[in-house]
Amino acid sequence: MDFSQYIRDVKDFPKQGIVFKDITTLLKDATALRAAGQQLYEFAKDLKINKVVGIESRGFIYGLALADKLGAGFVPVRKPNKLPAETLREEYTLEYGTDALEIHKDAIQKGDRILIHDDLLATGGTAAAACKLVEALGGEVLQLSFLIELGFLQGRKRLEGYDIKALIAYNAE
Amino acid sequence: MDFSQYIRDVKDFPKQGIVFKDITTLLKDATALRAAGQQLYEFAKDLKINKVVGIESRGFIYGLALADKLGAGFVPVRKPNKLPAETLREEYTLEYGTDALEIHKDAIQKGDRILIHDDLLATGGTAAAACKLVEALGGEVLQLSFLIELGFLQGRKRLEGYDIKALIAYNAE
Repeated sequence: MDFSQYIRDVKDFPKQGIVFKDITTLLKDATALRAAGQQLYEFAKDLKINKVVGIESRGFIYGLALADKLGAGFVPVRKPNKLPAETLREEYTLEYGTDALEIHKDAIQKGDRILIHDDLLATGGTAAAACKLVEALGGEVLQLSFLIELGFLQGRKRLEGYDIKALIAYNAE
Repeated sequence: MDFSQYIRDVKDFPKQGIVFKDITTLLKDATALRAAGQQLYEFAKDLKINKVVGIESRGFIYGLALADKLGAGFVPVRKPNKLPAETLREEYTLEYGTDALEIHKDAIQKGDRILIHDDLLATGGTAAAACKLVEALGGEVLQLSFLIELGFLQGRKRLEGYDIKALIAYNAE
């Protein structure tokens, strides 16, 4: 399936000059939704994943479905102060300023085989922070999967050495 | 399966005096994760649902998996200014102050058969706002499903007439 035909370009969102890749037009189509989930599963099915880490909030959308298909648990990585129990925090730089992600300290055990999922790979800062959190808790990151990769933002460079999969890659702005 | 044994009580979160029902301990367990998804599916499988509406952000977690199992599309309802295309907005009252939810105007067609999913039914304000958005676009709300219902907060009263399902109900504080 050509997933890109289900993605809607929204101009000037979230700000002037940006063309936002809107996945909601894929999600609302039952056939595309199912095919996308199946493809994400195929990417990872032989990796013996036992936990899927989903990054807030659009990484939650396919994250749990993937965990279910893989027979794995699901672990949310969230913005600061959203997770209720004891957390580990990782700060990362954005285009302007910094942000941070947190994970529950007891969410990952040493030796866990981890798939990290998010909707979008842009500069890779968010994904890199999620990798650090998982690895600090002793997990092994076997794959990073995304619905969309903005290849021109060079996220793969920041994530060198990881197995990176995306349903749709845009190589020009 | 007794799902309640997988829920963790976290005292004084998000503020003093509140006992937070933490679902992450259920999600990280592969067996409980799958059984919970199956039960949510069983609740709705005969309703001919064609779209599942998930409420940001924890409603995204099982929302897409449910849509996948039901052969439906998935529609996110989000906090203001997160959805990129044209939206409808509904304000609702919280314990202190007001908040709002948005839905894409083209996400629901007249006659769509809708399941609304969120992690938690508390006072029902958020779910009632989601119902209004769906109905304003011509959708029919066939079921509201939750992982947890805090029965003592009387959310069902605010949602009278709807089919409400929850995996776990707490009837005392």
